[in-house]
Amino acid sequence: MSSNLKKELEQISRLITQTIAEDTFPSGISPECLASAVRAYPIHGGKRIRPALLMWGCGALGGFPDSALYAAASVEIYHSWTLVHDDIIDEDDMRRGLNTSHVELAVHARKAYRKERAVCEKFGRDFAILAGDMQQAWAVSMLLRSVEKGVPPELVLRLVSALSLVVNRRLISGEAADVEFPMRPLESIRVDEVMKMISGKTACLLRFAAQCGGAIALNAADFSREPLAALGVYAENLGIAFQLRDDYLGLFGDVRKFGKPLGSDFQEGKPTLLYLEAMHRLSEAGKKRLRELTFLPEYPPEIIEELRGMMHDCGAEDALLRQTESFTEKAAGALALLPRNKYTDLLESLLDYLLARTV
Amino acid sequence: MSSNLKKELEQISRLITQTIAEDTFPSGISPECLASAVRAYPIHGGKRIRPALLMWGCGALGGFPDSALYAAASVEIYHSWTLVHDDIIDEDDMRRGLNTSHVELAVHARKAYRKERAVCEKFGRDFAILAGDMQQAWAVSMLLRSVEKGVPPELVLRLVSALSLVVNRRLISGEAADVEFPMRPLESIRVDEVMKMISGKTACLLRFAAQCGGAIALNAADFSREPLAALGVYAENLGIAFQLRDDYLGLFGDVRKFGKPLGSDFQEGKPTLLYLEAMHRLSEAGKKRLRELTFLPEYPPEIIEELRGMMHDCGAEDALLRQTESFTEKAAGALALLPRNKYTDLLESLLDYLLARTV
Repeated sequence: MSSNLKKELEQISRLITQTIAEDTFPSGISPECLASAVRAYPIHGGKRIRPALLMWGCGALGGFPDSALYAAASVEIYHSWTLVHDDIIDEDDMRRGLNTSHVELAVHARKAYRKERAVCEKFGRDFAILAGDMQQAWAVSMLLRSVEKGVPPELVLRLVSALSLVVNRRLISGEAADVEFPMRPLESIRVDEVMKMISGKTACLLRFAAQCGGAIALNAADFSREPLAALGVYAENLGIAFQLRDDYLGLFGDVRKFGKPLGSDFQEGKPTLLYLEAMHRLSEAGKKRLRELTFLPEYPPEIIEELRGMMHDCGAEDALLRQTESFTEKAAGALALLPRNKYTDLLESLLDYLLARTV
Repeated sequence: MSSNLKKELEQISRLITQTIAEDTFPSGISPECLASAVRAYPIHGGKRIRPALLMWGCGALGGFPDSALYAAASVEIYHSWTLVHDDIIDEDDMRRGLNTSHVELAVHARKAYRKERAVCEKFGRDFAILAGDMQQAWAVSMLLRSVEKGVPPELVLRLVSALSLVVNRRLISGEAADVEFPMRPLESIRVDEVMKMISGKTACLLRFAAQCGGAIALNAADFSREPLAALGVYAENLGIAFQLRDDYLGLFGDVRKFGKPLGSDFQEGKPTLLYLEAMHRLSEAGKKRLRELTFLPEYPPEIIEELRGMMHDCGAEDALLRQTESFTEKAAGALALLPRNKYTDLLESLLDYLLARTV
């Protein structure tokens, strides 16, 4: 990551953490363990990519990024609730090096109520459902605060509408596809379905973030008109390329750096683009071998090496890299339509960084 | 129920069903089973008490109830998502004579994917979490449509804010208390905690409904000023009295008419006001016997008779009836502050009906 990008991202991260920490929404919640769960993901946060897209999208179109601050905090909180519910559904224990919400609540319950483990785990899941429900409302409340920064009420209404009507449906339909895929035979899942899933689950909130910032800069909410459309194309393609890079690193990444164990997509039988490209290219014998290499209990280095070799030899690795590059180029092309300034430079650096990343 | 009240409620129910059925929100959802789950509770509906409170609250303050139609549909959808998540948490199978959302989705999964039962049940719960998440956003979208009925954008913003900031936190904190109570020793739960739970879980959305209608009539969103404050006091106390009546019917109701088996609150060890009043009044021997009569696997008629006798003799039955009457009187008193018209008459009939009901 360039030192300038790093510095700017860190500054946004501090601003967002402070804005979220100072907001009074969680203070009205009882009991206290639920209030803590509502605060946890938004405060702890990740790289704050969504707020950055929003504030830089605002700056890119000549707006004052600070006027988009509450909107930026809002998309981060919105992202949080989807993660909290996602983690319950995926039964994940850890996120960003800490317990997931439902696990943390279960741990609390063990200490506070001294009930048996299964009862506390159910309590953890139940309260995490409620915590996510509150975070969705918190995100809306935070977006509404944009009027305090001088954003006109009519525009704020349009932005709340886009979040509730467009983002919510696309994002959750994407999440639903991800939940439904394992219910279906892996062979029945098509590339266009996987692309639609990625576009909903990952790209759609990034698209909204960039366009929301741009809309605040221009006081215009028609996302289909330039230059808002270009910002949307940039962020959507950035999101897809980001996800494809993630899939690539899931097999070809450095085991010491990548968060999840290598091969976990194969272990879970995920219909990644890499997998589908391979199934499209392999001989019957190759397909048979690849099927044997999914859903294994463990992925030791020799299996990872075999998978890497297969993906390389059949051209699936190359196809994935070319696809990633193609989405990256679309993003860069859309960005080139905008006048250059400090913020479009940052958006360009972000694209370079996310695609070159090895972790 | 008076025939006029019945006729007016049926008319509102038809309007709300039609408005919800015609709204395009669910049409953008995939897969189709998720779209069906998002539609199910809002379309099927219950007595449509919340939309009625909203539209009559509007009429009571001189507004045109049709201008509050989308807001009325919104509170019904909002109520739905809380039920969908509540049913997952409570592991309930049936609602309003049909499968609950998560059960219906599990049944669908069994047919569509032919996986084992436990996998389909988890799928049902996961998709029902997502369906409720979408309904929360649908409720916001529907409320935003109020601008189509001429409600000014500034007021719509204030109403969305009240729904997201006030109702969401109070309602879910109430639901959370209900989930937390069984984790604690029954003896440790206080009357004020139970009243706060009822006020959040049941009364708060009723309060919002009536006040939202009134706010649309007056184009004013300060709920703490008259006559909006009076509408709020009316609806909040109606809600509490309604819940206390429910608790009463849970033991003293007619077994043939009441929806749940008699005694189910005792079976689940629920800290109802009736239970707490009894524990406050009984001798040590009486308390011991009452403890023996909670968490039983079955409640045959002789146990119900014994419980009724205990509640009567120690004065808990009378205390509950007096409390119910007191909240009813507060509601009626607030209503009396408003000018009389067709709609305040309907609000009065609604109060009479809900409190006299035996089912």
